[in-house]
Amino acid sequence: MVNLSTEYDIAIVGCGPAGLSAALNAKARRKSMIVLGGDFCSPKLHHAHKIDNYLGLPGLSGEELRERFLNHVREAGIAVQNAIVKSIFKNDPFFLLNTSKGDYTARAVVLALGVAAKNTIPGEKEFLGKGVSYCGTCDANFFKGKTAAVVGFARGAREEVKLLSEVCSKVFYLPQHDDAFEGRFGENVEIIRKEPTAIEGEKTVEFLHLGQERIEVNGIFIIRDFVPAGELLPGINLKENYIDVDGNMATNVPGVFAAGDCTGKPFQLAKAVGQGQIAALNAAALLS
Amino acid sequence: MVNLSTEYDIAIVGCGPAGLSAALNAKARRKSMIVLGGDFCSPKLHHAHKIDNYLGLPGLSGEELRERFLNHVREAGIAVQNAIVKSIFKNDPFFLLNTSKGDYTARAVVLALGVAAKNTIPGEKEFLGKGVSYCGTCDANFFKGKTAAVVGFARGAREEVKLLSEVCSKVFYLPQHDDAFEGRFGENVEIIRKEPTAIEGEKTVEFLHLGQERIEVNGIFIIRDFVPAGELLPGINLKENYIDVDGNMATNVPGVFAAGDCTGKPFQLAKAVGQGQIAALNAAALLS
Repeated sequence: MVNLSTEYDIAIVGCGPAGLSAALNAKARRKSMIVLGGDFCSPKLHHAHKIDNYLGLPGLSGEELRERFLNHVREAGIAVQNAIVKSIFKNDPFFLLNTSKGDYTARAVVLALGVAAKNTIPGEKEFLGKGVSYCGTCDANFFKGKTAAVVGFARGAREEVKLLSEVCSKVFYLPQHDDAFEGRFGENVEIIRKEPTAIEGEKTVEFLHLGQERIEVNGIFIIRDFVPAGELLPGINLKENYIDVDGNMATNVPGVFAAGDCTGKPFQLAKAVGQGQIAALNAAALLS
Repeated sequence: MVNLSTEYDIAIVGCGPAGLSAALNAKARRKSMIVLGGDFCSPKLHHAHKIDNYLGLPGLSGEELRERFLNHVREAGIAVQNAIVKSIFKNDPFFLLNTSKGDYTARAVVLALGVAAKNTIPGEKEFLGKGVSYCGTCDANFFKGKTAAVVGFARGAREEVKLLSEVCSKVFYLPQHDDAFEGRFGENVEIIRKEPTAIEGEKTVEFLHLGQERIEVNGIFIIRDFVPAGELLPGINLKENYIDVDGNMATNVPGVFAAGDCTGKPFQLAKAVGQGQIAALNAAALLS
């Protein structure tokens, strides 16, 4: 059985602009909350050269805005827990969030996952749990003495590579992120700068295709800041790969809201901040 | 015939946070635009003591935010035209906006009217054009030598009172706004600090009810920063008195978008700014 030790009113999954805005507004409504996010919160914002269309804050770089946002939230007394959320399921009247840092329960959930869906690798969904994993810390031991590939969309991937290299006989590391820093790894780690194109196997994973080539592997660890929404919370309605929401930012799953890039275009800052607010206020209203 | 001298890509009706955010984003998409608004842009923001839930700008008063927003837009080279929009109608492929400062045409419209609908006076709709008017400058002469009441929801009402007092035999002024400054008027102006409750008459306006009392009048000028959406643009779908929009902030009228408080709750800053952005980007996308 899982340990249901930590209970919150609202769990906010993601700490980019939508997630942080949701956190501020949940706080304003005096709700208890846990904010779960990647180790960098908004790599996308970090890369923006200059943003001029967020009303009231002209002429700042994305990085300046990112720091300003994190400071605002910190000053409001809100902490961000650096954790990968692996799955969410309903356990009435709570949601159970299974993460790399333990389990959390919350009465409502705001998904602010950013744009992740476009990076889904063909075969990923089919082989999930059959060689494909989203968390090295969790599943490394299944691949003891075997060969694994780590596809790194998020900066946290290199930590997973290190961990796996201590357990597996061979680890291929495929950094997919601009920021990816290879670090120093053991001799059994091979870095490949290619894009994964498909996952193949009979019953479990056997090959990872890289365009014309393929490599033989037993396991594939796909490391994103977030698991794609459809895998994270089975049963959630998607619309062209994005989470389908109504005007209140409610999804089809009662108690689950979504905001920001994960709900579709435009992929813009003010939109994410506004939707984060709407999602949190409606989540709070549901609980009171 | 109306003078179609000034044509724009996008007309933005309203200069509160939603309208200003729409303006910035229309500008970012290199669209020509006219921003039409009240003389103060956001009296509601002005009154807010402290706003702490607009991500990135903690601890400012509403007035500080209002000034910051207007500066941002000014620095982006966008001017706000102080005008009351009286009606909007489609004149394919353009919209014609009839205002107190002349006519404008635009290919798309963003309505950012704020919360106005709740102030509708019982009987207002029925007697519109039958004694009820939204614009003294336009209709004063119909009430020459007669008795008129001015119901002032917006700061601009006192100018209308002055104008009408030069034309009418008697003017009742009912300021409804906290900011309302009575000014110095002629002897034929009587200030009444009461709330209008109903408009009565046989075929045209005869009485304005003020709770238990009523005053005899020939005309009633209702001065808001904006005409209610349903009167402004006949045929637009409302939902519980607010403009009905989809996730793209599109209304049922093709080419017309809406954002901010006029689309319903929550009446919040970040939501208005985010929706203004979505509305403008979708309006721009429609034109390109």
